[in-house]
Amino acid sequence: MSEAVIMSATLAAEEVLERKRRNGQRVLSLASGEIGLPVHASLKDRLSAAADQNAYGPVAGSPGLRTAAAGYWARRGLDADPDLVIAGPGSKALLFAALMAVDGDVVVPVPSWVSYSAHVRLIGREPLPVPIVPGHGGVPDPDLLHGAVSAARARGREVKAVVVTIPDNPTGTVAAPDIVRRFAEVASELDLVIVSDQIYTDLVFDATAPASSPAEYAPERTVVTTGLTKSLALGGWRTGVARLPDADLHQRLRTIASHIWSSPPAPVQAVAAYAFDEPPELVSWVAAARALHEKVARALAARFTAAGASLHPVHATCYLYPDFEPLREHLERVHGVSGGRGLAALLLEKHHVGVLAASEFGEPDRKLGVRVSTSHLYGDTDRQRTAALTADDPVELPWIKACVEHIGSILTDLTGRATS
Amino acid sequence: MSEAVIMSATLAAEEVLERKRRNGQRVLSLASGEIGLPVHASLKDRLSAAADQNAYGPVAGSPGLRTAAAGYWARRGLDADPDLVIAGPGSKALLFAALMAVDGDVVVPVPSWVSYSAHVRLIGREPLPVPIVPGHGGVPDPDLLHGAVSAARARGREVKAVVVTIPDNPTGTVAAPDIVRRFAEVASELDLVIVSDQIYTDLVFDATAPASSPAEYAPERTVVTTGLTKSLALGGWRTGVARLPDADLHQRLRTIASHIWSSPPAPVQAVAAYAFDEPPELVSWVAAARALHEKVARALAARFTAAGASLHPVHATCYLYPDFEPLREHLERVHGVSGGRGLAALLLEKHHVGVLAASEFGEPDRKLGVRVSTSHLYGDTDRQRTAALTADDPVELPWIKACVEHIGSILTDLTGRATS
Repeated sequence: MSEAVIMSATLAAEEVLERKRRNGQRVLSLASGEIGLPVHASLKDRLSAAADQNAYGPVAGSPGLRTAAAGYWARRGLDADPDLVIAGPGSKALLFAALMAVDGDVVVPVPSWVSYSAHVRLIGREPLPVPIVPGHGGVPDPDLLHGAVSAARARGREVKAVVVTIPDNPTGTVAAPDIVRRFAEVASELDLVIVSDQIYTDLVFDATAPASSPAEYAPERTVVTTGLTKSLALGGWRTGVARLPDADLHQRLRTIASHIWSSPPAPVQAVAAYAFDEPPELVSWVAAARALHEKVARALAARFTAAGASLHPVHATCYLYPDFEPLREHLERVHGVSGGRGLAALLLEKHHVGVLAASEFGEPDRKLGVRVSTSHLYGDTDRQRTAALTADDPVELPWIKACVEHIGSILTDLTGRATS
Repeated sequence: MSEAVIMSATLAAEEVLERKRRNGQRVLSLASGEIGLPVHASLKDRLSAAADQNAYGPVAGSPGLRTAAAGYWARRGLDADPDLVIAGPGSKALLFAALMAVDGDVVVPVPSWVSYSAHVRLIGREPLPVPIVPGHGGVPDPDLLHGAVSAARARGREVKAVVVTIPDNPTGTVAAPDIVRRFAEVASELDLVIVSDQIYTDLVFDATAPASSPAEYAPERTVVTTGLTKSLALGGWRTGVARLPDADLHQRLRTIASHIWSSPPAPVQAVAAYAFDEPPELVSWVAAARALHEKVARALAARFTAAGASLHPVHATCYLYPDFEPLREHLERVHGVSGGRGLAALLLEKHHVGVLAASEFGEPDRKLGVRVSTSHLYGDTDRQRTAALTADDPVELPWIKACVEHIGSILTDLTGRATS
């Protein structure tokens, strides 16, 4: 494997924080996007009820799960054939396998999630970075995409696919429908397979403005992936689904799946089939979680803005992506910090707060940005987390309020400005 | 991905049989090695008890699981450091990732399990086939290994690893300690990483003659993998563990894991930690399963031998690997069959019996062999399967006896010889 592939930054950061925690250090994790909320009781019941299921079943997942996933997409206006759906142990595994199945160089937006470029390098190909339109994260700027791919092809590179994230990680923004449409047109002109990671679809704050998918505009070339990690806090259960655009790519991905993971864990498949059917109690739960993410993210965003960082309005997910460029002179002079990695290190060492440097998402080392996740702020116990989920004003709960205040003080220490 | 990679033959065969079954056809599956036995009650209880665990946890698996796995190996005379253990969603995923971490061409024994060569091709490398010593499956013949690797290297190939299976799939044999030792010596001389798939360790029929591992002779270069799929019939739960020989390979594999599967499913990890501790009720269960495999495998082996196929004595697993070469003239003349694939197709189409052709395991197309698995013969219901597990003479149970007789009649039809 390429030496350029390093450990997943989100998972690595979480392990460092866990070690500090075990050493008795009080830490604040804003690093990984793991959702710190309890498992819904109905999901636990279904896992227990499926504990006698020990057969592999079909490589692509059970017919019930695939049908449920297709229904989930249909309710969001996306055409999906259960026979072209593949379930896997997390959407991460499916994204990796989809890129392996396509087997070419891959356009990745800058910034974008830590694993896409790693996936491309693991299959022996190269990522081709293309910037986003600021405020419309997760999608390469359509005006730059054509030129970048054409130039790379002229240099002999075999560019075959492009990855997008809608809604976006790390920026917490949602690319506007017009940008997604234009992107899909350019990708079609370039004959690129589009791999659309839509794991945050259900975490768009404004339910009247759902996220667009390239599959609306170019269904014949778009792979869509999602999972239950973000909406239902089931990261540790490892379950995801992919919608494949055609039988050929489906067969390739299924072949890869058959040799890497065989099939998704059977008891978890039973849970996932139930969850993708979206029974009312889970729909309410997701709505409550979404509202919680929104309120806490907005409260934190206000602190970063007050401290002088610049920040595009956050419309989805549990992420903020503040840019400290307006504070560069101060940060360099007072703290000797001149890039995102230095900023993240300072926050970790001096304040025991974990965040991820912008460079982990493909940005230049010089970029004075970090990604901040709110998803670990909801409580330390199931009781606190459940209270956060049901509170009208979760930011007023003492443990969340204390975290927000604490982050405010740290930002004041960092920037010299009051944040409240 | 290479066009040479085809769908896992075992999983594909099982899907074909399932489709026939759904169409109302009575089929007999001797194709996949999935263990058709029920989940032990204590494992179901532990899965339910762990249903609130939704965090990713460490990429390499929980400390409890890694410590339990190291203990499991220690009880079998293998040195393993919990900090150098990695758990994954099945040992298949770990085998793939280990080969990706080593990143070179790989020696594979002929015959050997269907996925090794696929793994090597998926990472863009080439398998280097080396024959086994007949009757000592799963390990390349030490006398041929040196020459084969040296010649390949002289041709410019970067051969870096060798995969072995002890006890062996597909042959059901166990390489003798002397062969394993000599193999490890040659692999050391050649500076190869040894990847030792030991998922059948607990299915050696004679408990006084346990299987050897190359890790006894070359621990510094041997990766050992195992899982709960075979001994505890937990294939569908997807859990495996790998013992890494050094920190460098451990870090590479962990990096790959962090980008492909993040961590093994958390509730299943809790079960696996319990199982690798080997509490008495599970040790008894494994002993009963082993005895069942032995009795049914021997009963079937007798039919194949009576029909004129040649067969090395089966010492482990639930597999037979009969060679119909002695019957070639008859099979060609009467049935127009001249290779393993034709034989498997005849059994499937005429008799609705699924087996795998020897060519699926890397043998020449002309090889008149098939792999036969007994693991689906134990019953159609949990009641029957539990009865099989507890019977003194399971072959006398009506549903197993009927299957054995039915296979006998098919062999008589095929070969013209009485089999009982």
